[in-house]
Amino acid sequence: MKKENISDAVIRRLPRYYRQLTELCGRGVVRISSHSLGQEMNITASQIRQDFSCFGEFGQQGYGYNVEELRTEIGHILGVDKDHHLIMIGVGNLGRALLQNFRFSQTGFTVDAAFDVAPSVIGTVVNGVSIYSMDTLEEYIRSHNIDVVVLTIPQAVAQETASRLIQLGIHGFWNFTNVELSSPNPDVKFENIHFADSLLTLSYRIANR
Amino acid sequence: MKKENISDAVIRRLPRYYRQLTELCGRGVVRISSHSLGQEMNITASQIRQDFSCFGEFGQQGYGYNVEELRTEIGHILGVDKDHHLIMIGVGNLGRALLQNFRFSQTGFTVDAAFDVAPSVIGTVVNGVSIYSMDTLEEYIRSHNIDVVVLTIPQAVAQETASRLIQLGIHGFWNFTNVELSSPNPDVKFENIHFADSLLTLSYRIANR
Repeated sequence: MKKENISDAVIRRLPRYYRQLTELCGRGVVRISSHSLGQEMNITASQIRQDFSCFGEFGQQGYGYNVEELRTEIGHILGVDKDHHLIMIGVGNLGRALLQNFRFSQTGFTVDAAFDVAPSVIGTVVNGVSIYSMDTLEEYIRSHNIDVVVLTIPQAVAQETASRLIQLGIHGFWNFTNVELSSPNPDVKFENIHFADSLLTLSYRIANR
Repeated sequence: MKKENISDAVIRRLPRYYRQLTELCGRGVVRISSHSLGQEMNITASQIRQDFSCFGEFGQQGYGYNVEELRTEIGHILGVDKDHHLIMIGVGNLGRALLQNFRFSQTGFTVDAAFDVAPSVIGTVVNGVSIYSMDTLEEYIRSHNIDVVVLTIPQAVAQETASRLIQLGIHGFWNFTNVELSSPNPDVKFENIHFADSLLTLSYRIANR
């Protein structure tokens, strides 16, 4: 499998392919051409073939793709089958919304625990996830294998918390704080959800339609 | 101002520029070169100049950009100064988290009202926003100028609710439902927050670091 120098744009299309293929599986579609897949996703067929060629050969010329096989393959590339473990820091409204509504398991993640500073939530359980005191965070991380930390904490403590976690060996951050976090270590990966960027994009689009 | 055929990638970088320039203003930076701005954002200087050239001339060759002027200009392009009006449909945990924590005003939006079906939340007020019954939605939209609807409702009712709103003349949707919404009318704009796509991108990155 070739996996060098894959552009950010290609990587960001992979989850979209996975989502579309999951939907096609649900609809009972067995086989699809790059042309039809492109039409469903508003991507050209040649772009799709080029994206997939970064990871090897998935289809057979002239026969299209087997939907379920392709979904499994892309899911594998994305790590859906890896059983990643995750903890959440900050169980305010947003953290609670994610715990209650987001289907972590569908992306291959298990939520092992959540942490907060508020006495009113410490010791409670949200959708099966126990919420612990931040005081116990370091000990917890040292004794568990955690792949990703979800940061749903206030901006003011974002970088400081991230730095503390990086020192404890955490390499993956799903960052909802709207602060641009950084690390001198290039192996530490931050994935940011920027609500404001998204709403501003919409603002531009409605003004320029 | 030239504004035709601007690519999706350029549009998506505009909010990032705006965010970075806001931060630079906060730090008291008065003037910045495309080179320095690029270093801060991990974008090449030529990419920045090319992006800005889509919208006119902002800097003076060799003198760099005036940070505050450029921020105002990009904010204007994004519509931050337009006083857009928005309503929210669905005040569960996620809707509540957005109402309480997201600074709508910083993106030029005012939240006029929110709607839900649950008797326990109808009639309450969250962070100054009144929550009304879904039964009053049509009347409300007919008598107010609403630019954008935030959809924080369950997947099962997402498309049906969007279609009803489109018929009432709504053109902008900030969509948190994880359902790919569509309209035959190209003037209707959907901006999707796909949490799963984001987490899968992170999953890929930690597996391939």
